[in-house]
Amino acid sequence: GYAQLDLTRGARCGAGEVVYGEGKTAEQVAGIVDALIAAGQRHVLVTRLSAEKFERARELMESDTPLEYHADARIAIAGGMPVQSGNGTIVVACAGTSDLPVAEEAALTAEFLGNRVERVCDVGVAGLHRLLAHADQLARAQVIVAVAGMEGALASVIGGLVSCPVIAVPTSVGYGANLGGLSALLSMLNSCASGVSVVNIDNGFGAGYQASLINHL
Amino acid sequence: GYAQLDLTRGARCGAGEVVYGEGKTAEQVAGIVDALIAAGQRHVLVTRLSAEKFERARELMESDTPLEYHADARIAIAGGMPVQSGNGTIVVACAGTSDLPVAEEAALTAEFLGNRVERVCDVGVAGLHRLLAHADQLARAQVIVAVAGMEGALASVIGGLVSCPVIAVPTSVGYGANLGGLSALLSMLNSCASGVSVVNIDNGFGAGYQASLINHL
Amino acid sequence: GYAQLDLTRGARCGAGEVVYGEGKTAEQVAGIVDALIAAGQRHVLVTRLSAEKFERARELMESDTPLEYHADARIAIAGGMPVQSGNGTIVVACAGTSDLPVAEEAALTAEFLGNRVERVCDVGVAGLHRLLAHADQLARAQVIVAVAGMEGALASVIGGLVSCPVIAVPTSVGYGANLGGLSALLSMLNSCASGVSVVNIDNGFGAGYQASLINHL
Amino acid sequence: GYAQLDLTRGARCGAGEVVYGEGKTAEQVAGIVDALIAAGQRHVLVTRLSAEKFERARELMESDTPLEYHADARIAIAGGMPVQSGNGTIVVACAGTSDLPVAEEAALTAEFLGNRVERVCDVGVAGLHRLLAHADQLARAQVIVAVAGMEGALASVIGGLVSCPVIAVPTSVGYGANLGGLSALLSMLNSCASGVSVVNIDNGFGAGYQASLINHL
Amino acid sequence: GYAQLDLTRGARCGAGEVVYGEGKTAEQVAGIVDALIAAGQRHVLVTRLSAEKFERARELMESDTPLEYHADARIAIAGGMPVQSGNGTIVVACAGTSDLPVAEEAALTAEFLGNRVERVCDVGVAGLHRLLAHADQLARAQVIVAVAGMEGALASVIGGLVSCPVIAVPTSVGYGANLGGLSALLSMLNSCASGVSVVNIDNGFGAGYQASLINHL
Amino acid sequence: GYAQLDLTRGARCGAGEVVYGEGKTAEQVAGIVDALIAAGQRHVLVTRLSAEKFERARELMESDTPLEYHADARIAIAGGMPVQSGNGTIVVACAGTSDLPVAEEAALTAEFLGNRVERVCDVGVAGLHRLLAHADQLARAQVIVAVAGMEGALASVIGGLVSCPVIAVPTSVGYGANLGGLSALLSMLNSCASGVSVVNIDNGFGAGYQASLINHL
Amino acid sequence: GYAQLDLTRGARCGAGEVVYGEGKTAEQVAGIVDALIAAGQRHVLVTRLSAEKFERARELMESDTPLEYHADARIAIAGGMPVQSGNGTIVVACAGTSDLPVAEEAALTAEFLGNRVERVCDVGVAGLHRLLAHADQLARAQVIVAVAGMEGALASVIGGLVSCPVIAVPTSVGYGANLGGLSALLSMLNSCASGVSVVNIDNGFGAGYQASLINHL
Amino acid sequence: GYAQLDLTRGARCGAGEVVYGEGKTAEQVAGIVDALIAAGQRHVLVTRLSAEKFERARELMESDTPLEYHADARIAIAGGMPVQSGNGTIVVACAGTSDLPVAEEAALTAEFLGNRVERVCDVGVAGLHRLLAHADQLARAQVIVAVAGMEGALASVIGGLVSCPVIAVPTSVGYGANLGGLSALLSMLNSCASGVSVVNIDNGFGAGYQASLINHL
Ligand SMILES: Nc1ncnc2c1ncn2[C@@H]1O[C@H](COP(=O)(O)O)[C@@H](O)[C@H]1O
Ligand SMILES: Nc1ncnc2c1ncn2[C@@H]1O[C@H](COP(=O)(O)O)[C@@H](O)[C@H]1O
Ligand SMILES: Nc1ncnc2c1ncn2[C@@H]1O[C@H](COP(=O)(O)O)[C@@H](O)[C@H]1O
Ligand SMILES: Nc1ncnc2c1ncn2[C@@H]1O[C@H](COP(=O)(O)O)[C@@H](O)[C@H]1O
Ligand SMILES: [Mg+2]
Ligand SMILES: [Mg+2]
Ligand SMILES: [Mg+2]
Ligand SMILES: [Mg+2]
Ligand SMILES: [Mg+2]
Ligand SMILES: [Mg+2]
Ligand SMILES: [Mg+2]
Ligand SMILES: [Mg+2]
Repeated sequence: GYAQLDLTRGARCGAGEVVYGEGKTAEQVAGIVDALIAAGQRHVLVTRLSAEKFERARELMESDTPLEYHADARIAIAGGMPVQSGNGTIVVACAGTSDLPVAEEAALTAEFLGNRVERVCDVGVAGLHRLLAHADQLARAQVIVAVAGMEGALASVIGGLVSCPVIAVPTSVGYGANLGGLSALLSMLNSCASGVSVVNIDNGFGAGYQASLINHL
Repeated sequence: GYAQLDLTRGARCGAGEVVYGEGKTAEQVAGIVDALIAAGQRHVLVTRLSAEKFERARELMESDTPLEYHADARIAIAGGMPVQSGNGTIVVACAGTSDLPVAEEAALTAEFLGNRVERVCDVGVAGLHRLLAHADQLARAQVIVAVAGMEGALASVIGGLVSCPVIAVPTSVGYGANLGGLSALLSMLNSCASGVSVVNIDNGFGAGYQASLINHL
Repeated sequence: GYAQLDLTRGARCGAGEVVYGEGKTAEQVAGIVDALIAAGQRHVLVTRLSAEKFERARELMESDTPLEYHADARIAIAGGMPVQSGNGTIVVACAGTSDLPVAEEAALTAEFLGNRVERVCDVGVAGLHRLLAHADQLARAQVIVAVAGMEGALASVIGGLVSCPVIAVPTSVGYGANLGGLSALLSMLNSCASGVSVVNIDNGFGAGYQASLINHL
Repeated sequence: GYAQLDLTRGARCGAGEVVYGEGKTAEQVAGIVDALIAAGQRHVLVTRLSAEKFERARELMESDTPLEYHADARIAIAGGMPVQSGNGTIVVACAGTSDLPVAEEAALTAEFLGNRVERVCDVGVAGLHRLLAHADQLARAQVIVAVAGMEGALASVIGGLVSCPVIAVPTSVGYGANLGGLSALLSMLNSCASGVSVVNIDNGFGAGYQASLINHL
Repeated sequence: GYAQLDLTRGARCGAGEVVYGEGKTAEQVAGIVDALIAAGQRHVLVTRLSAEKFERARELMESDTPLEYHADARIAIAGGMPVQSGNGTIVVACAGTSDLPVAEEAALTAEFLGNRVERVCDVGVAGLHRLLAHADQLARAQVIVAVAGMEGALASVIGGLVSCPVIAVPTSVGYGANLGGLSALLSMLNSCASGVSVVNIDNGFGAGYQASLINHL
Repeated sequence: GYAQLDLTRGARCGAGEVVYGEGKTAEQVAGIVDALIAAGQRHVLVTRLSAEKFERARELMESDTPLEYHADARIAIAGGMPVQSGNGTIVVACAGTSDLPVAEEAALTAEFLGNRVERVCDVGVAGLHRLLAHADQLARAQVIVAVAGMEGALASVIGGLVSCPVIAVPTSVGYGANLGGLSALLSMLNSCASGVSVVNIDNGFGAGYQASLINHL
Repeated sequence: GYAQLDLTRGARCGAGEVVYGEGKTAEQVAGIVDALIAAGQRHVLVTRLSAEKFERARELMESDTPLEYHADARIAIAGGMPVQSGNGTIVVACAGTSDLPVAEEAALTAEFLGNRVERVCDVGVAGLHRLLAHADQLARAQVIVAVAGMEGALASVIGGLVSCPVIAVPTSVGYGANLGGLSALLSMLNSCASGVSVVNIDNGFGAGYQASLINHL
Repeated sequence: GYAQLDLTRGARCGAGEVVYGEGKTAEQVAGIVDALIAAGQRHVLVTRLSAEKFERARELMESDTPLEYHADARIAIAGGMPVQSGNGTIVVACAGTSDLPVAEEAALTAEFLGNRVERVCDVGVAGLHRLLAHADQLARAQVIVAVAGMEGALASVIGGLVSCPVIAVPTSVGYGANLGGLSALLSMLNSCASGVSVVNIDNGFGAGYQASLINHL
């Protein structure tokens, strides 16, 4: 009763149903993962899952498929990673150490969807040489996910350096006038560089997913 | 003095410098277009140009390259359209008749950047059958630009129907609690469908540009 | 001293005084329920009541009328459900599993006020076929309550499918740019479909109440 | 090209397609009205139409059906009013003289949709006796549309007096901290009276439409 | 070091320094109260003090003057209440049971400043007869403090009934689109009744203080 | 039809009905002023009236009572000023030259309601000595109206200097982050000085009215 | 009456009174400039002055001191520029051509206050090489004014390159989610680079003034 | 992996890399401090560090350099304070006792960067004599940091008294319409006094850093 699984999403949208763990009970998570596996989905991704809920959901699951936890990204994966199928490399770049959880959510989502991913951390614009040192790596990317909080300038600066699409993820990192991530969100939407599009605050999943769609065209 | 042309942008970012007409005088527009052409750029795009400013800029231009105006999109193009070079088709879909200027800005930008573009108009979610009638056309797209004001639901609905990336453009169409387009912007950022990323309110140019990058990978 | 019961509301407004549990002590809740029963009201609804406060209020109550708790909706009901008196059926539809508590508050409120209610869950617009599968059920409704968080597009899509009034309830489900439910609220207020009116964020009670008034005309 | 008329809306939603005049050219308005009439729709409503655009659209129309203008509501109607078909009376009440255009948009829309409408003007809560003098009239209504700007308290006060549904319309009347109507909108959404649901700021059309749906159940 | 007591405030502003307990340690509160008493202030008011901090501050105080706690208003008073010195009566009216803590902060502050205070509770506008039943009491007041959350309509309705000044206090009572009290605040600022001025959200102290100044002219 | 005059307001609220000119036609203004005079009101105040509308309304009026215009405050007065009846003096202080229209609206309103008014201009806190030079005048006031835009600090500084009530009026003077007057409004609501209450942005009328009520107790 | 000139500001704050032209009549501007000159101030700066008002004020002025207009910055200066007295150079850098008016207001203000100023235009972060080409010039500055609209990233990037203070000026350049300059303002306040402080949106004057104070220490 | 230390910042920006403790684990803090010391940085500042994290980080550190904690400012310092190198004195002034933690973060940061600092506490504008008593001390300062919550008027008042630059720090102290510090932030940005620039809400670090840059020119 509590869920109507979207079992044709794989065919329709190119990737199977994903479970959003927030606001679901461990029972519901286990039930949905079991149902998806029973319906033939071989790999299942659960996002926004706390460690406690993960533990309980693993115990409650009836399927044999192992469920593994990635604490930094608060992600659980049933059935392991698929083989790589994307055209090129997705680079996930983040501005500061505190942005890592969101960056990791993006990176793991993209890997789960069959992409080769490279991570570039702590390259915020306050020390530009750190970013410029990765210029070649950025230039080789098929698509870049740029993760930043505070003033979110990383997306614009990367957008001005490369010729591939940039998916920008504002994070809620910061305080005061960061307004819970709105400052970075507004920055990225108003980017003076072209080729930048934006997802919701802290939505690493959405950026990894969009990057994967682009990398599979 | 007033401008430092970014003459290496074509090499760096995959498309030459574009002129943002808003807040520039006709003299400045003419001067910049002339300079870009003199520097060897064969096609120049000017966005957000009023009809009056266009007329004056065309007179002031020294170059022989003809400048043409597209009134519905408030765009001027010098040097005409390039040959098509994209991988597939970009579909630009819009929710209502009033969203047309933004949709047309997206479509013309994409065509200017060498893409084949198909337009699907007035397919807002209040009459879903109108959108569903274009299901096959949407399914064939390489990337879709979804343009909508008011509640901006079109992006989510399209996002749930297709497996290609969707670039969502909120418009300022509406009144009252539409908050100048923020309602549609927030809707699109919170889309329950995956594979949707967002550009600024009324930023048809940005969506067409991002779609073109994706269509040229 | 702390309350002036509105004992003529039943006569005046068609339904007796309802107790809003939030921000009241268990003592206050028990005292008010007792007073309403003493004044002759046979069924009493308490909304937004935590499980702990419910337990304590039940112990403190002096009346014999049993008080029952509905945990999913955080609702307590004294005196059980009345007989059904509405003209037709109220359909309560919700977009995702996380919207269930609000949907259940709406459904129980409507049942408490004497209506036949049908529930339709997890029919968010990211997988439209799930909603379209209930098209006949929606068409038969006298009034529909549409509950959704995130981008709240469900209300517009339902509004475009049916000829009965739709009462839209935005929920605070989501994160980041959902602004605690404002994104869904704004969406619903800007609905491009006609026949949609809106209540406060997470206000399942208000929607159930309004639907009941309409179903009793 | 610029419009896809929703010709099945009458069957699907209980009322034919309505034309939103804002942001359309006189040519587009005339074209759409002609097309709807050609498709067999006998009465056509155009909202948010300026006097100038109306004049030009009337000249451009090819159909014989006369187009009449209601300046106070900025509404044009082709084919006159239909016969009354609603169950009871809709009362449209407004708080101040400046709210009249919105109230009139609501009243005319409801009349256009076949309802008997009574108007109650200038009954804002600063002089409560004026409203209470209409208590009987309000009590006889099948549904009430409450139109108010500034602090929008009228909706709550009416909601507490009657047992029929109230559709509240916040208006942008006021200045400063009225935030273009947001103050009245928020008031109405937070109404302490039950049985009040809300439409967009200045959306008299939407309220009249919703009231009509309710009055035809 | 941590405080510079404003020891001339009594002479300058008509009432001695008041201690704002929030964000101060129990040590700081005790120290300031002791210092004010040592400087000759006979009655000291401490607002926004938790029960725990009160207990600790009472122990830490060196002065003999007893410190008493009023839990409902989170207020402590050293030196008891002064004799009444105001010209007339201050009426503190509140809309709902949940607004009581703020109303009580206003009432106690006014009493502390030497005023006769009458309390009128739970007279929200959803049941207008409850307020109208106190019409004579309101008419006799020298000044009225109107406390309300949600849509805050109480201030406008009272403002339209009386000829004395009304000090309006919006409260944070409510949820969702009440925006932590902003909805009531905006309502009160946009009141269509004259003779209403407003203090900060939940600022019972400020309203009681202003009412006292007026009652002592 | 368009207005229901509140003819008992004088008796009920201490001052007769006032006409808010904004959003009314010259015909409506003339009609209402005539009706009030016909009903025996000897002095009528019209606020927010443009010079053009005033001219036309004066011509349209049927009553013999002369209508005079005060251009700086955009106020018209029929029947001249009444005799002074207030207890003491109202001081209207404003921060800068650009705040004068709002200050004058407050001053004229208070004079119209029978108060002695003193004006103190251009005493913003950036040059504190200008304000301090008026310390004695402020100390003698019965009530002070403090008018300021930008950061609105004047209200707090005056509030800390005097023992009479201060009615603060934020103005929309300023630009950028003044948010149309919200910055001054928020400042005044958060005043660290007690004895300050606030009216709507630019609402000189409301402040003058409230000051008059206080000055007549 | 309308102004109280702050004639001791030069002694007190290091620079004489400046005239803010917005919201003043030409008569008021001429009167104030005359009075300041009569009081011995040799150079007078008027900001935010339209060309029309300037023309009229020049005619109305009684003093012999010539008044000159700088159209790009909307600034008038009486008495010409003073001799340079600052310690080093102030660099005013701006992101785009449309930011020029604000940048010029900053530069002229600084020059008026006795500083040597260098201008660096159109060095937005979308083409980083343009900014990096000025690295030496930036490194030699005593203080830098960074002017940018849209996402305002220029301030952070410059802040990370230099060891002198940066005064950031957000501009209202952009559209949609730039919210009239709030996006750039928030960016600059949340800068991940240290040594950046911020003035109001479009407040070139304030930045030039602050830079001058710093350059004169 | 998790951090790319900006080891050239001292040379580039005049002060070494600072560690932002919020959102970092104790392990990460210890690791970064160790690395900076290993790289030759003799003094390391860690801001926004809880007491618990400090304790654990001190244990985990491998370097011999002692790490000391300043609880009031939530700051840890490795390697003690450097010798004073600034030109003059920095005065840190705060409005109320509750603003002390932010003021102390500013003061310690400035001392860490080699400045002489004087603290002036509890000089809010509600009791102006307290501030004016420090007029000479303020006049001698090279730069002033003004820290205030609520309505933040302190910055404007100080700005009008002195001729040195003022760095304003809004704090989140207050409640209700203080909007978490936005009221003070907006006040300070709209200051009618010149020579005031602003940092983020509660950003004592940023203000101390900027003041130090200015004091070292
Ligand atoms: N972290 C996330 N953020 C946003 N959307 C998500 C996230 N994880 C999953 N989703 C989406 O949420 C849908 C599942 O929602 P539900 O049916 O409530 O589990 C998936 O199909 C995804 O499209
Ligand atoms: N004043 C109005 N406010 C809101 N919605 C309206 C209004 N007038 C018409 N509509 C709706 O807008 C639809 C027409 O939009 P469009 O296709 O853009 O002309 C109609 O079917 C109505 O549902
Ligand atoms: N609950 C309250 N809300 C607002 N202001 C208060 C409150 N209680 C006391 N105050 C004011 O805060 C001042 C004391 O602040 P402080 O010096 O920080 O203790 C008093 O002089 C009062 O004017
Ligand atoms: N309290 C603070 N507020 C704002 N920025 C800070 C603070 N403390 C340190 N920073 C900045 O944050 C940078 C370090 O960020 P991270 O690399 O994430 O540790 C430092 O170089 C400082 O510029
Ligand atoms: Mg770092
Ligand atoms: Mg249409
Ligand atoms: Mg689902
Ligand atoms: Mg009226
Ligand atoms: Mg009650
Ligand atoms: Mg002045
Ligand atoms: Mg450029
Ligand atoms: Mg104090």
